[in-house]
Amino acid sequence: MTAAVGATRRVGIDVGGTKAQGIALDADNQVVATAHRATPRGPDSLEPLIDTLIDLSRELEHDGSVGVGVPGLVTRDGVLRAAPNLDGVANFEIGGMLSAALGIDVPIDSDATCAALAEWRLGAGVGATDMVMVTLGTGIGGGLVSNGAIQRGANGFAGEFGHMVVDPAGPPCPCGRRGCWERYASGTGLAMLARNAATGGRLGSIVRELGGDAQAVRGEDVQAAARGGDPEALAVIDEFGRWVAIGLSNLTNAVDPELFVLGGGLAQGADLYLGPITSWFEQLIYQPDLRSIPRLEFAKWGPLAGAVGAALLPAEASP
Amino acid sequence: MTAAVGATRRVGIDVGGTKAQGIALDADNQVVATAHRATPRGPDSLEPLIDTLIDLSRELEHDGSVGVGVPGLVTRDGVLRAAPNLDGVANFEIGGMLSAALGIDVPIDSDATCAALAEWRLGAGVGATDMVMVTLGTGIGGGLVSNGAIQRGANGFAGEFGHMVVDPAGPPCPCGRRGCWERYASGTGLAMLARNAATGGRLGSIVRELGGDAQAVRGEDVQAAARGGDPEALAVIDEFGRWVAIGLSNLTNAVDPELFVLGGGLAQGADLYLGPITSWFEQLIYQPDLRSIPRLEFAKWGPLAGAVGAALLPAEASP
Repeated sequence: MTAAVGATRRVGIDVGGTKAQGIALDADNQVVATAHRATPRGPDSLEPLIDTLIDLSRELEHDGSVGVGVPGLVTRDGVLRAAPNLDGVANFEIGGMLSAALGIDVPIDSDATCAALAEWRLGAGVGATDMVMVTLGTGIGGGLVSNGAIQRGANGFAGEFGHMVVDPAGPPCPCGRRGCWERYASGTGLAMLARNAATGGRLGSIVRELGGDAQAVRGEDVQAAARGGDPEALAVIDEFGRWVAIGLSNLTNAVDPELFVLGGGLAQGADLYLGPITSWFEQLIYQPDLRSIPRLEFAKWGPLAGAVGAALLPAEASP
Repeated sequence: MTAAVGATRRVGIDVGGTKAQGIALDADNQVVATAHRATPRGPDSLEPLIDTLIDLSRELEHDGSVGVGVPGLVTRDGVLRAAPNLDGVANFEIGGMLSAALGIDVPIDSDATCAALAEWRLGAGVGATDMVMVTLGTGIGGGLVSNGAIQRGANGFAGEFGHMVVDPAGPPCPCGRRGCWERYASGTGLAMLARNAATGGRLGSIVRELGGDAQAVRGEDVQAAARGGDPEALAVIDEFGRWVAIGLSNLTNAVDPELFVLGGGLAQGADLYLGPITSWFEQLIYQPDLRSIPRLEFAKWGPLAGAVGAALLPAEASP
């Protein structure tokens, strides 16, 4: 295996459920090329996926350095253990297969860890020694930087923040438990809070626009109404912000970061959410008078975060 | 300042609310001496406390290496920010003052971090790269080892696990929030679960022994009855085990340790608790089929854990 050190064109690929997004970084960490392919799906998609990744790496003209992010649990030695959005490819040694095919070490990590790496090295968290990245999307994922290093945990599964239980009597989660943080503080959670408000008689103007169907109220409807100043919609956003802050405050007690970087799809609504999240966070944090309160920042990298972080993986790979 | 490296007799002192416990470790990490003093209390106790620590260090014949554990929040540069059990001494530079007095660098850390260090280097966690220590006492404290290093966080406040909220609508906590983990999973929590059971009509035989006063039921009564096979007492222990496991499973999602070391006063009841905690933990853990499940072990060091860990601090001090 050739070493990735000194590569001047580093390729990163973020494998999503529908597309594999690739980028190339030059020596100055600028994105100098992008390319994507549809993600092969179905029961026999393993070989086509590997071929797609090799193809993308070559098109992006890697110079001996390729890293890959995948949506699932990845062990510390590059085995993809579970990927709910990649049917047919779970539990295989994606790292080993790609390394063999390309003749270089290809590190693999979860897309959330890759996104954390992009923000830490080249985004909102530059210079931090202790940072927590939380991706608020359909669910909640994340990544952890402690004492100046990405932390993966014993299995490589650190950062699965979405399944921290914040109410053992709460709504059931597909994971089998109840009241996981992502039941409340994700896109799915916002939708639930919106439906609960609508079926409880609030959000009247939205429900009227939907022909009286309270069950049809979506998170997007609440966002739009809140931007228009609707007080009941703003109250749902506030409730959502409280649930986000509960999880952030719990993570502060566990690992005491200097900042949180909030990413994922909901980062698009930063203008709406930052105020309520910050206000609740300052109320909920333990011992606020004795510590510097962690900063809350929204991610700087948008949809390319995973690919950029993947490109940084070879240089961060643990020894 | 002389360096602590190479010291053959390392002194550690654990400052508690009532006594300061000191020990000396020889080059083979054996405890070769112990000594203790009453902890000076009251508004003018700062100077007497420093004198006590100097006195203990000298009596224990330190060889250029002294470390101190304190019950409270300690910043990364050795400032004790808050110590609920040490009235009159909060927010002072204990590390700087001791270092000046003894002419050597004296690292300071929280008693929970010291206990974690003792278990990690010389106890139940030897050889682990990712370990979480949870001290179950009147409250819940803890310490964190990730990727082969003690993690202190940005402020030095990592490991405050007791104030992670597990039920935002739960009972009020003296910290000002509701439903903190230590409301349920500590000695205080066991007492609450016991009282709730008794006032709800369970634990009849214990209540009868107490002359019918359901409010008087203590955790110790439940432990004794459970050891005698009382099914209602065993049910309270099971409920307690579930709350402990909820927090352990949350911490697993955050940092993915290979083992938990459970210490603190409740570790005395390991025989009663290990079964229920383990059983609930295996039910509650996320993705149990895809990972190695963290081991649960009780601490090997008893009341000397803090002092032993304090003695190890100089060698672990961050660069």
